[in-house]
Amino acid sequence: MWLRTKCDLKFEIAVPTPFILMLRLRSGAQQWVASEKYKLEPSVPVYEFTDSYGNLCQRLIAPPGPFAISTEAAVRTADQVDQAPGAPFVEVEYLPDGVLSYLLPSRYCESERFGQMAAAITADQLLGYDQVKAIETWVRDNIRYEPGTSDTPLSAIEINARCSGVCRDLSHLGIALCRSLSIPARLVVGYLHGLHPMDLHAWFEAYVWGRWYTFDATQPELRGGYVAIGYGRDAADVAIYNQFGPAVYPTYQHIQVQRIEEKDV
Amino acid sequence: MWLRTKCDLKFEIAVPTPFILMLRLRSGAQQWVASEKYKLEPSVPVYEFTDSYGNLCQRLIAPPGPFAISTEAAVRTADQVDQAPGAPFVEVEYLPDGVLSYLLPSRYCESERFGQMAAAITADQLLGYDQVKAIETWVRDNIRYEPGTSDTPLSAIEINARCSGVCRDLSHLGIALCRSLSIPARLVVGYLHGLHPMDLHAWFEAYVWGRWYTFDATQPELRGGYVAIGYGRDAADVAIYNQFGPAVYPTYQHIQVQRIEEKDV
Amino acid sequence: MWLRTKCDLKFEIAVPTPFILMLRLRSGAQQWVASEKYKLEPSVPVYEFTDSYGNLCQRLIAPPGPFAISTEAAVRTADQVDQAPGAPFVEVEYLPDGVLSYLLPSRYCESERFGQMAAAITADQLLGYDQVKAIETWVRDNIRYEPGTSDTPLSAIEINARCSGVCRDLSHLGIALCRSLSIPARLVVGYLHGLHPMDLHAWFEAYVWGRWYTFDATQPELRGGYVAIGYGRDAADVAIYNQFGPAVYPTYQHIQVQRIEEKDV
Amino acid sequence: MWLRTKCDLKFEIAVPTPFILMLRLRSGAQQWVASEKYKLEPSVPVYEFTDSYGNLCQRLIAPPGPFAISTEAAVRTADQVDQAPGAPFVEVEYLPDGVLSYLLPSRYCESERFGQMAAAITADQLLGYDQVKAIETWVRDNIRYEPGTSDTPLSAIEINARCSGVCRDLSHLGIALCRSLSIPARLVVGYLHGLHPMDLHAWFEAYVWGRWYTFDATQPELRGGYVAIGYGRDAADVAIYNQFGPAVYPTYQHIQVQRIEEKDV
Repeated sequence: MWLRTKCDLKFEIAVPTPFILMLRLRSGAQQWVASEKYKLEPSVPVYEFTDSYGNLCQRLIAPPGPFAISTEAAVRTADQVDQAPGAPFVEVEYLPDGVLSYLLPSRYCESERFGQMAAAITADQLLGYDQVKAIETWVRDNIRYEPGTSDTPLSAIEINARCSGVCRDLSHLGIALCRSLSIPARLVVGYLHGLHPMDLHAWFEAYVWGRWYTFDATQPELRGGYVAIGYGRDAADVAIYNQFGPAVYPTYQHIQVQRIEEKDV
Repeated sequence: MWLRTKCDLKFEIAVPTPFILMLRLRSGAQQWVASEKYKLEPSVPVYEFTDSYGNLCQRLIAPPGPFAISTEAAVRTADQVDQAPGAPFVEVEYLPDGVLSYLLPSRYCESERFGQMAAAITADQLLGYDQVKAIETWVRDNIRYEPGTSDTPLSAIEINARCSGVCRDLSHLGIALCRSLSIPARLVVGYLHGLHPMDLHAWFEAYVWGRWYTFDATQPELRGGYVAIGYGRDAADVAIYNQFGPAVYPTYQHIQVQRIEEKDV
Repeated sequence: MWLRTKCDLKFEIAVPTPFILMLRLRSGAQQWVASEKYKLEPSVPVYEFTDSYGNLCQRLIAPPGPFAISTEAAVRTADQVDQAPGAPFVEVEYLPDGVLSYLLPSRYCESERFGQMAAAITADQLLGYDQVKAIETWVRDNIRYEPGTSDTPLSAIEINARCSGVCRDLSHLGIALCRSLSIPARLVVGYLHGLHPMDLHAWFEAYVWGRWYTFDATQPELRGGYVAIGYGRDAADVAIYNQFGPAVYPTYQHIQVQRIEEKDV
Repeated sequence: MWLRTKCDLKFEIAVPTPFILMLRLRSGAQQWVASEKYKLEPSVPVYEFTDSYGNLCQRLIAPPGPFAISTEAAVRTADQVDQAPGAPFVEVEYLPDGVLSYLLPSRYCESERFGQMAAAITADQLLGYDQVKAIETWVRDNIRYEPGTSDTPLSAIEINARCSGVCRDLSHLGIALCRSLSIPARLVVGYLHGLHPMDLHAWFEAYVWGRWYTFDATQPELRGGYVAIGYGRDAADVAIYNQFGPAVYPTYQHIQVQRIEEKDV
């Protein structure tokens, strides 16, 4: 399917403020970016680089006054997310080098403390995809998805205690559980067509049978319409903006994901 | 200034043909990509990766039949190219690690054979920027710029013997001469506003005084309006398309670079 | 000074166990590895790769039975650690791309929750080196250094509550405090000549005035004799060994750091 | 088998001279470095980095006067080189991203000009390993191997005209022929046990059936005893030393490769 995604952010800046943005979509195995707009008002010098996860990041200094970022893209994404029930676990010795770091605990995914819990949740499953599916189901059934309830990321331990969270939080718990079973897992931040209420979204991917598969504990079932913005070990690595100096919050944030025809790209 | 760049390519494909394209502009120190379109007809799966020079490359298989690629971008680029007469040479021991490979000879820049010639051309110059300027001037004055005269790249040695060439060829000679003086130099492929006849363009950059500076022996003098598509050691690294299997040539190629207003981005 | 470092580890392996070791020293700005031995008994196939922090990592599968790793190196390291009182803070916009990830919170350094505390500790300091020095002093004065008291890493929040910890723990707190002030900081694992009791050591580095400087809250004052094994965001990234599958603990671990003469290298 | 390799180089330096050395062996799929010595006399500051091919490179400035480099290593390497007659060609669309650059022409491997010749040489072969084997055989039979006859690298075109060359030259021709058939190929510089006369050696690898295989047109048949120092597109990328400023040549160069027992490592 073809989607048009939009993200509008407005800030009121008091002092010159360095930002690192991660709002340039990349084409990848799962999506093709056919058109893209990236507008800054006022227009300031920007420098773009690729971080160690392959994300395109924009560095700039926002000047005092109103500062608006608006991005828009037309993206082809899968109608259905690939699923692979029964797909086998990849033994650690066969994982590609670049995937190994997704086995380690990270800021919001304290995986080294979830071994027993993950073993219990996945007790009867085949090693691999089915374990991850059991984890996704467990999180869906046990952690209440409450969009819009938190601004700062919480960690897997905190979410597990709290039993509710936003999309990012549920994903962090899913990731921590996977990694505790030596299954590489990573956070994805992006858009999802049909999300209610519409907002930026976060889900997770797990590496089994030689590739990354998509999981999402916030939705009743996996369907198509995912558009990835960035990948990382957890929310610490994948902020759509990092801002330094005195804290600045968006005064306006608007996300839109619309189905379009290929001819309207 | 704001420019709209367009590149349209059409092929007639006989058998399924793997392509690697390099037609996704990147924002960098010198340019900001505010909007972009990238269209393939028919629409095929594409996988994008970043090569070792930082270029975004698109991998795909073109199916038999007509195959069209059209890209378009709105880019802010400098009104004037930065120049720095007198800027000093960077001693090899102070060059960043990532710049060192631009000192080595490469396919079309046999720099290890140009030492004496470069020494003669730059005899009276201050080490650094002024040496590169002398090289650019020498190439402009001694190698006739004949756009459209060659399809396959020629090497610096060949061009020096032939005394004429296309933009890529003149750049190769400039690069080989710089490197022979231990000045890192690289090829840039892209667009130039006001180029006659309009086509894709190639120029070179040399690293002095801690950054890359632009040089172009094909133009009477440096002005603004450059838009980079890709960087590399020479044309072997920076082809806008590499195609494998039976050779395929574009049946149509059209390049356009227009000045636009910021409001029309 | 020249040092000979030795690390001997013995395991009793029950089932074939994948390991990732980080025990190959690298030469760097601060140290030169003049000789090195790396012995595995039994001798098994090993594959070495470079991780995203530049560390050399060895992948192997330990077979059932006794498994011994012994490494040894002769290294030249600084007689005195560089210090730079007054060295200025680097504004985020001027940090190299590769340094930016050391500003982010990580598994054991929850820097986003230490802003107020760091501000209080560094209230009267010049921005930059002196802030980090104040943090190092505060950690030394307020967190009791108790070598050998913990096996699993604790996080900065946990250590701050507990008021005691091992070298790694004190470093995690120092790092979290630095990052909360937008000063990049990273963990170093390695050897320290004269450490009592002798063991592997951990300290931290902070990026000010264009380079990394060494800090160590476990020692009364900075002196020479540091030998780095690996770098990372925190202990999650820099384990001298990561082991997968059923947990295996060393049955023997012996570390030695001896002063030698250059002629005995 | 276990081998002890030694490389001794001596220079007489007139003015402070920047060097980039590539003499630190790396453990890899094919070899394990169990011990290593790297001595510089006089002892100067050295900075080590990893280049874009994964080689460890040492940067230093040699001071005026005699300057000696001596390296030594004990390495386990295969008794027999892996061979895979019949192993299939990997279609370009399935090559890993990192392998693609080994398809491009490079300084000494003008592969874009060898298509017809390679097609003729490999006319009756299965696509893949057997094509490379036919190329290796053709080079062995048609280009006379004359060790010690050249100091500066020659290109595949030059060698093909000259019909004789050193190990590096024969490899360049083999590489150019492979690439012209869309088979990735790279140069390896290192040691070979039993080479006569003993010297540094160069051979090539080709990527078929999902991995790199070793080929060597200078030897009557493939056997074990290869120790790799560095990899690259051709000799421009893999010099054991690159030196900048007024040319300096070794006044002494001695290479030794001895079989040892594991107990003598």
